[in-house]
Amino acid sequence: MNVSIAHLGPLGTYAEQAAINFTKILAQDIGKEADLYPYPSIAQTLKAVAQKEVELAVVPVENSIEGSVTMTLDTLWQLDNLQIQLALVMPIVHGFISCAQNVEDIKTVYSHPQALAQCQGWLERSLPNVKLIPTNSTTEALQLLKQDLTAAAISSQRAAQLYNLPILVTGINDHPENCTRFWIISRDDVSYPYHKSPTLSHTSLAFSVPANVPGALVKPLQVFAKLNINLSRIESRPTKRSLGEYLFFIDLEADACEPKMKSALAELTTYTEVLKIFGSYSVLQTVGVGNG
Amino acid sequence: MNVSIAHLGPLGTYAEQAAINFTKILAQDIGKEADLYPYPSIAQTLKAVAQKEVELAVVPVENSIEGSVTMTLDTLWQLDNLQIQLALVMPIVHGFISCAQNVEDIKTVYSHPQALAQCQGWLERSLPNVKLIPTNSTTEALQLLKQDLTAAAISSQRAAQLYNLPILVTGINDHPENCTRFWIISRDDVSYPYHKSPTLSHTSLAFSVPANVPGALVKPLQVFAKLNINLSRIESRPTKRSLGEYLFFIDLEADACEPKMKSALAELTTYTEVLKIFGSYSVLQTVGVGNG
Repeated sequence: MNVSIAHLGPLGTYAEQAAINFTKILAQDIGKEADLYPYPSIAQTLKAVAQKEVELAVVPVENSIEGSVTMTLDTLWQLDNLQIQLALVMPIVHGFISCAQNVEDIKTVYSHPQALAQCQGWLERSLPNVKLIPTNSTTEALQLLKQDLTAAAISSQRAAQLYNLPILVTGINDHPENCTRFWIISRDDVSYPYHKSPTLSHTSLAFSVPANVPGALVKPLQVFAKLNINLSRIESRPTKRSLGEYLFFIDLEADACEPKMKSALAELTTYTEVLKIFGSYSVLQTVGVGNG
Repeated sequence: MNVSIAHLGPLGTYAEQAAINFTKILAQDIGKEADLYPYPSIAQTLKAVAQKEVELAVVPVENSIEGSVTMTLDTLWQLDNLQIQLALVMPIVHGFISCAQNVEDIKTVYSHPQALAQCQGWLERSLPNVKLIPTNSTTEALQLLKQDLTAAAISSQRAAQLYNLPILVTGINDHPENCTRFWIISRDDVSYPYHKSPTLSHTSLAFSVPANVPGALVKPLQVFAKLNINLSRIESRPTKRSLGEYLFFIDLEADACEPKMKSALAELTTYTEVLKIFGSYSVLQTVGVGNG
């Protein structure tokens, strides 16, 4: 039976591209084929795994320009039975897609707010008077373009191919190093050999700390620093109870099963209110453009 | 001459509400009137101050549900000549605005992505099949409502009044404690007595740290913890150079002119690459609803 994988839809999103890249890894590593299922939101993508509609989800976690995908972090905290199997880092190359003859003819540009933000400098230089319209995904506006020759969308090369639309300019992102990190998520009661890497290089977790105690965040971080465990990322999110109360999401460069991590995690519980460990995993670099 | 204040437009946004609340404080404290200038984006609102088009800007920093307003943090880091004068905390009460007879008739709901996210639970319960359309501001879609009786917008009570539209349901936010913190920003070469508070209770700053050094973030935080200076907030933002490199935005509960803060800030420079101090200020609670 094929592996079922949920991703943010519709077809042609960068999440679908990441899911396609992952299916190749899956075929190579465990010789299994996969079926992809687009969902209308990241929250619904993760809930589909939690509720056993699908086996896995591919969700964006962080972009090198725009930062954390907060919906992914917030949903992962809310749902109690998920774990990270693997991380994929994929370069993001934005195309400027339109049926117009020239870039100068464009009056309106549609895209996901993150993509608009990632091309802000190019848009200001090339089209200073254009109207920017946010959409739910980078592909949502593509069907409008054939009727409206003054409209453009910012989307992937694959999306342009899927919708049979011309790319006027390739690589319009302001920072050529633009990358997005995705997580492959499963339920926590299953175990997949989805990665051949001998070591699980990263562990992700989240915790809340007692409010309004000086140094309340320093103590958990010291636990890792004194054991020389590198913290590769920290992100705060509101608890949603009251302004000024936070959860902290942390990525560590170590496997939760290493002895020093075991003792760090045990000590960590003395400084945290609620602690959730999302699992240990490897990080793979993958390509973003191509035919999928 | 009146004080000129920029805010995210158009009329009826929560940023305009905060700006109106601030003008009352201004009138009380220094007996000056103010003129408000709506700008199309938060970045342009802050640039208007940096480039001396206006004296002050009112910008959202953080919401208790959705977290940081990353555009505000990123723009403040980029522009070199701004400082925080005051913080205002304002409750956010979302109204469900439509010309429909009943909530059940609604097929499409328009609003800013943060407002849609803050009412997610109510929308799922009340209108499970509705289409959610993101807009650039909470007020942008209001002019559509008179023509389309199946459309609704999520916006403030003041916006409904300004556009003469009925509020079908008040207070649809999922968390009644929903608050947004705003900063009043000026250039750093000016000094305003915009607050009567005898003490400046908070200081905000941001810094980058050497990449891939275990404990690189712990050291700066320890500086404050050992002096018993409470860290009320930490937010990481990508440097936009490469995935995994961050800036840290920190709010501290102390005045930068206190002796212990002076020594902490001096020690801090030994652990940071670039350090920017955005100023010390007081925090005022203010009301959100009302006639403005």
